[in-house]
Amino acid sequence: MKEKITIVKVGGKIVEDDVSLDVLLNGFTAIGGHKLLVHGGGRTATDVAARMGVETVMVGGRRVTDAAMLRVVTMVYGGLVNKQVVARLQARGVDALGLTGADMDVVRSRRRPVADVDYGFVGDVERVDADRLAMLVRSGVTPVMAPLTHDGRGCLLNTNADTIAGEVARALAPLFDVTLVYCFEHAGVLVDPGREDSVIPRIDRATFEALREAGTVGGGMLPKLENCLAAVEAGVARVVITRADALAPGRGTEIVA
Amino acid sequence: MKEKITIVKVGGKIVEDDVSLDVLLNGFTAIGGHKLLVHGGGRTATDVAARMGVETVMVGGRRVTDAAMLRVVTMVYGGLVNKQVVARLQARGVDALGLTGADMDVVRSRRRPVADVDYGFVGDVERVDADRLAMLVRSGVTPVMAPLTHDGRGCLLNTNADTIAGEVARALAPLFDVTLVYCFEHAGVLVDPGREDSVIPRIDRATFEALREAGTVGGGMLPKLENCLAAVEAGVARVVITRADALAPGRGTEIVA
Repeated sequence: MKEKITIVKVGGKIVEDDVSLDVLLNGFTAIGGHKLLVHGGGRTATDVAARMGVETVMVGGRRVTDAAMLRVVTMVYGGLVNKQVVARLQARGVDALGLTGADMDVVRSRRRPVADVDYGFVGDVERVDADRLAMLVRSGVTPVMAPLTHDGRGCLLNTNADTIAGEVARALAPLFDVTLVYCFEHAGVLVDPGREDSVIPRIDRATFEALREAGTVGGGMLPKLENCLAAVEAGVARVVITRADALAPGRGTEIVA
Repeated sequence: MKEKITIVKVGGKIVEDDVSLDVLLNGFTAIGGHKLLVHGGGRTATDVAARMGVETVMVGGRRVTDAAMLRVVTMVYGGLVNKQVVARLQARGVDALGLTGADMDVVRSRRRPVADVDYGFVGDVERVDADRLAMLVRSGVTPVMAPLTHDGRGCLLNTNADTIAGEVARALAPLFDVTLVYCFEHAGVLVDPGREDSVIPRIDRATFEALREAGTVGGGMLPKLENCLAAVEAGVARVVITRADALAPGRGTEIVA
């Protein structure tokens, strides 16, 4: 019987607002057993960049990261957001440790090759050091991971927080019973987009295909659910999609293999 | 016989310039055995603050840290400078881990009481968790410490890097044979301020008193040497004052009890 670990991914919108951050951190603190937090911070990065005269360029929802923007996201993700979360978790008795992929070499990536778009200093994850993370977690530490990795040659790389959470979950799956929680703006996958009480409690591959054929889920939810299914099919015990203020077990939509 | 550890403190001037940083990190990488780096970053903080429209106010060489400046130093010290150093050490095969005092609660401080000056969010060190740092170091990790601590109640505090280095050295002294290296702009304590080859190789309390009475050392060097002597008298094996490009043993001035 493997030990349990809960990996929570939360976006910038939540961590950048004092009130919603406190609600999230209370919920995260209440999670029993091993846990790990992955956060974003894009809105603050955009704001700080603007104040510093650095232009934000987004292509297909992804941030183009030139040298000036890399400095901004290193400051905002690795410093401002990460350390505020760490300090607030410590105040709640959670023994948090802020990490980028460069720290203890826990996540190494490769700069994305230039295809149609040159995203600049953006990394695609190559390797997660699951043993290192497991060592930390088993010693009672709660890693708080910023969406930054490194190439092993001295360069930091901006890396999507959803991707880091997914890759960390897969890497830890052989060692732990992994629950991966994606916080988003709704209470879960909804049957009726207008009704937060219409959450579909559980989705597996067969349910997903049926929901897709019936047109119940579509648009941006399709690739999101595909990613969740890929994670559980790769060994992650379960993926949960829920609201940041509803981290308790049984809330949201659970995706299983 | 205690294991050896070398603690190097380097100021912002060195870590903020690509060339001098590379020289420093090469020297630091070459140090054998356990090691730990404490860095500053004040110049970049002043620069980023200016670009963000935050005014820098210094009193007696110390930065007054209001809420806006705390955000800036959290970004610059905890993010930009710290993570660049970590990534570059990883590229040299040093298993670096960036830390503020909040991470794993390694350095807790108390907000400085308001006396003649209100320094704002500035912390005086209360406690260093030597066991935690020793555990990391013995597992092969090299801590890279930013000049930020926390109060245990969710607030980060700007904290002088020299002080952090000194407090960490004292806390580790019962567990390790500690060499504390302060990098500064000269080759060591000089007999003749104009000649870099006039380094005094070794100073103990008796030498210090003689140098002071003869007027050989004075000004800002007096409190610096007093601090070094206090550290060695508190159990730190030796303190070395040297240039950042001269970290090798036998360089600089060694202060002993």
